[in-house]
Amino acid sequence: MPERERGRRLTIADVAKHAGVSKGAVSFALNGRPGVAPATRQRILEVAEELGWTPSQAARGLSVKRAFALGLVIARDPVLLGSDPFFPAFIAGVETVMAERSHSLVLQVVRDAEEEAEGYRRLARDRRVDGVFLTDLRRRDPRLKLLDDLAIPAVTLNVPDEESPHPAARLDHEPGIAQAVDHLVAQGHTNLAHVAGPEEYVHGHGRREAFQKALERHGLPPGRVEAADFTAAGGREATQRLLNTTERPTAIVYANDLMAIAGMNVAQQLGIDVPGELSVTGYDDTELAAHIHPGLTTVRTNVFAWGQVAAHMLVSLVEGNVVADVELEPPELVVRGSTSTPSTRKGQRT
Amino acid sequence: MPERERGRRLTIADVAKHAGVSKGAVSFALNGRPGVAPATRQRILEVAEELGWTPSQAARGLSVKRAFALGLVIARDPVLLGSDPFFPAFIAGVETVMAERSHSLVLQVVRDAEEEAEGYRRLARDRRVDGVFLTDLRRRDPRLKLLDDLAIPAVTLNVPDEESPHPAARLDHEPGIAQAVDHLVAQGHTNLAHVAGPEEYVHGHGRREAFQKALERHGLPPGRVEAADFTAAGGREATQRLLNTTERPTAIVYANDLMAIAGMNVAQQLGIDVPGELSVTGYDDTELAAHIHPGLTTVRTNVFAWGQVAAHMLVSLVEGNVVADVELEPPELVVRGSTSTPSTRKGQRT
Repeated sequence: MPERERGRRLTIADVAKHAGVSKGAVSFALNGRPGVAPATRQRILEVAEELGWTPSQAARGLSVKRAFALGLVIARDPVLLGSDPFFPAFIAGVETVMAERSHSLVLQVVRDAEEEAEGYRRLARDRRVDGVFLTDLRRRDPRLKLLDDLAIPAVTLNVPDEESPHPAARLDHEPGIAQAVDHLVAQGHTNLAHVAGPEEYVHGHGRREAFQKALERHGLPPGRVEAADFTAAGGREATQRLLNTTERPTAIVYANDLMAIAGMNVAQQLGIDVPGELSVTGYDDTELAAHIHPGLTTVRTNVFAWGQVAAHMLVSLVEGNVVADVELEPPELVVRGSTSTPSTRKGQRT
Repeated sequence: MPERERGRRLTIADVAKHAGVSKGAVSFALNGRPGVAPATRQRILEVAEELGWTPSQAARGLSVKRAFALGLVIARDPVLLGSDPFFPAFIAGVETVMAERSHSLVLQVVRDAEEEAEGYRRLARDRRVDGVFLTDLRRRDPRLKLLDDLAIPAVTLNVPDEESPHPAARLDHEPGIAQAVDHLVAQGHTNLAHVAGPEEYVHGHGRREAFQKALERHGLPPGRVEAADFTAAGGREATQRLLNTTERPTAIVYANDLMAIAGMNVAQQLGIDVPGELSVTGYDDTELAAHIHPGLTTVRTNVFAWGQVAAHMLVSLVEGNVVADVELEPPELVVRGSTSTPSTRKGQRT
């Protein structure tokens, strides 16, 4: 970043230094996000004005060598990536925006968090991208600070569990899980279980909390939760653990469709009728959900729109605008044949 | 391409001009591929030597502004991309090679062939990438010449149906389809149908031909073929057309898992037992194939390895080496519960 080293252009770091706050706090203040005390916000805005610094100027600084590319680093076992419907749909949404603006998407698939951090450092060092999408937020995610330190503009998918200088494209998962639980309770279920995603992810943790909160709202005791890894194999094992108990649940709320479909199959192989003896709900509404037997009741999220919104936000951020969080339409429950009252007997399903 | 305009560096075009042949023919000759007459090949090699031109020099010319990035342009309805398991698995394989060589993958999703051509022109003009992967080959694919004209090094997935100057990462689909037909015929089926991919693709066309060829080998008449689009919805409709006939088939060979799973569901909803009254085979061995009920007999292809091999080839090509076609391990049939003898009755499946 030679422009900065020569000291000819003000950066967010200068404002932070003069105001005696972190760079993140400056972003916060300028983006009008909570997490900065009013007095601090006021001081930051005054310092910025005094120095003659504006976010768009900072962006111009960054854009001296604009790459006209945005980056996505995916930390996932590459072998498992093929069965995750999220990324293709998200990327497709992103691409609709990129194409019309002649931007490219630079993709890196890495094996773990450490490689991922190195991936971001490399993108920053080589000036490959002007900004990045931050997906699969982890609890107390170290990448929030890393990207801030690397001065890479970023948009997070959903809201981190701690202060973040980056605007968020928000898709609240709680209403979807709550609708699934409401639907099952309305059908007469009282013994519900949840097959969750990994606890270290904000989304895995959030859906789990949403599940328990919904039960509590109905005056039901906490449900049993089995953690899995979003794969069919993981969903299968978690379901086996849930069904190999004396007090087996009459309904299972899964954190994604892949695990739900695998779980339905486990039940069917054990001779447990779905939905007669076990109701099942998924999450995602993948294309196959409507094409299995019985059809999967699931929560439909518009991941494509999420990609579009996040891309619009990131392009705007890179162009030097102040970008606020954007909230997407909440997900909605799609009821199909995999759920019914607990008393339904075999053969009555549609 | 300022280096060329200044005329200081020889290019493949100079060799082509002096030898009185196309640039493609020069590539062909140097890559030792068929399609160039021996005398022509000899003349090309002599001209190249006379001018002092070598492929690696050409690559050095190209690499004056090496992007250290490879490109993938996907022409697909973005909304449907999320349900295609091919690209994530392929990209994951590519990425394992890219990461260790500090290369990035630049991705563009476009809606149709016209946008795709524009995508390649843009990548070439902006020097965003050093080479591209050419997937979903179409019959008489105009991109072969386009990439040659744009002087973008390319590796094709499988072999085009006409002369190509680009090396191919080959994964022969015929043995997989043949194994599926052999397996069904061995079980006693004589009335087989095929739900095919779009006819305009080399792979869709190839699997269809492989299906008929296998039937012919067994002395059976040509089977009925219904074209679909690789989506679950398309597979559903094609299956309905096949089952709504008086002489309905006892076995259906599908061109991918998604269509096969949707097809199985159609049969089950019509009260047709799978596999008792209808055997079903897929293609891909997606993660869910083992986790539905009954499990899907399908053809396992190693798309991940395909991505790795193609990436190694393309990096080598970009570095100026002569790259020959590489043949991958043929696909293999994985037998599960969705196939049996035509006489099996309901309830006997596992």
